[in-house]
Amino acid sequence: MIDWIAFDADDTLWKNEEHYINGRDRFLEILTKYDLESGDIENFDQFEVENIQYFGYGVMSFVLSMIEIGIKLTDGKIEAVDIQQLILLAKEMLSHEMEVFEGVNLLLERLSTNFPLMLITKGDLLHQQRKFAASGLAHYFRAVEVVSDKSAGVYEGILNRYNITPESFIMVGNSLRSDILPVLELGSWAVHLSNHTTWSFEKDPSSQLDQERYLKVDGISQVYDKLAEAGLLPG
Amino acid sequence: MIDWIAFDADDTLWKNEEHYINGRDRFLEILTKYDLESGDIENFDQFEVENIQYFGYGVMSFVLSMIEIGIKLTDGKIEAVDIQQLILLAKEMLSHEMEVFEGVNLLLERLSTNFPLMLITKGDLLHQQRKFAASGLAHYFRAVEVVSDKSAGVYEGILNRYNITPESFIMVGNSLRSDILPVLELGSWAVHLSNHTTWSFEKDPSSQLDQERYLKVDGISQVYDKLAEAGLLPG
Repeated sequence: MIDWIAFDADDTLWKNEEHYINGRDRFLEILTKYDLESGDIENFDQFEVENIQYFGYGVMSFVLSMIEIGIKLTDGKIEAVDIQQLILLAKEMLSHEMEVFEGVNLLLERLSTNFPLMLITKGDLLHQQRKFAASGLAHYFRAVEVVSDKSAGVYEGILNRYNITPESFIMVGNSLRSDILPVLELGSWAVHLSNHTTWSFEKDPSSQLDQERYLKVDGISQVYDKLAEAGLLPG
Repeated sequence: MIDWIAFDADDTLWKNEEHYINGRDRFLEILTKYDLESGDIENFDQFEVENIQYFGYGVMSFVLSMIEIGIKLTDGKIEAVDIQQLILLAKEMLSHEMEVFEGVNLLLERLSTNFPLMLITKGDLLHQQRKFAASGLAHYFRAVEVVSDKSAGVYEGILNRYNITPESFIMVGNSLRSDILPVLELGSWAVHLSNHTTWSFEKDPSSQLDQERYLKVDGISQVYDKLAEAGLLPG
């Protein structure tokens, strides 16, 4: 009945958003010496989202947006040494140690004996590949797809390429906007990790989720039982 | 005999390096007011290459390296307005118009009637996908692979995934380092566009190329005749 199970990567299998939260904190700390109005900095998320059309998702995009808004908010007064701090921050974020969530290994071990597993992750290709290699999880996965966006059309393209019918596909992830809503739209199953830390942009307060193929759990360690309860596992 | 023909994208099918050359010129122009030693700036390429381990290939990597070396060479004196110019340059480079080389459409038209064509391109995922969509060439290609590096191992992975034997695979590209040497190493055919503008990092002066499966032409418009001459086309 189920042919493939796919997983999001960042904030689903390993820590990610925390590094961005820490990065944003470092940025605010750098800006304190420039005497800004407190309201000014609140627009950072919006600014970052507007830059996605150029820079896409990922650390380089995040840091270029910080540099740009830093220049704008300080009226060009931000010093080069502070911008250099932001570039160093990018290098740190691109090479930090991986922290795989507790329960991930056990879950993938159990599921991969019965299903081919796929990783579907969004963002910077090199960084995503490097994190995947460093996670120690690669051997559980039959396929890896790094995409620049997670729309219903992108998922549809993947299902077509692998010859998967929507109703035999499960996506597991933390982001309503990227992992859950587009696959429900196609008629697939979605397991939502509702208590994992998630970037505000990835939430979608407007979503209607009262349907059979939407499964909600707190965290990754409850996925196996939830799938069993929904009758999606063999035996 | 030949199962698949693959093409590199940047500087093979469309203009690319020229935008980087122009970008570097804009950077040098910005730096003129800071009274640097002329030798200082010559290390830019080396600096950029050292940053590949963090930032990979592409416009964001290029611009982050320029910002970083700009700060370093001016001893932190570079002004924020000049850094803002570099971020604007990044946005321009990420959204410039595509210029497909003359002869590309005709070549792909003729080859795609007899062979499945694949695009294998390196760099920033979002930007590469956007350029591909804007090129008007997408309908000629059966498969697209955006990779973070072009090593023999990466090509081998692609051949395995598509079930292609090395000797039935042709790669066409402008870069000895990325398009030609790794595929020759696997035992595949390689068509080298030797007169296309190429980033210095992509050249390889040490290469030994006296082998049957290395085919050299000046430019893209000579590829079809070269393949016919080598007996690789049907009829």
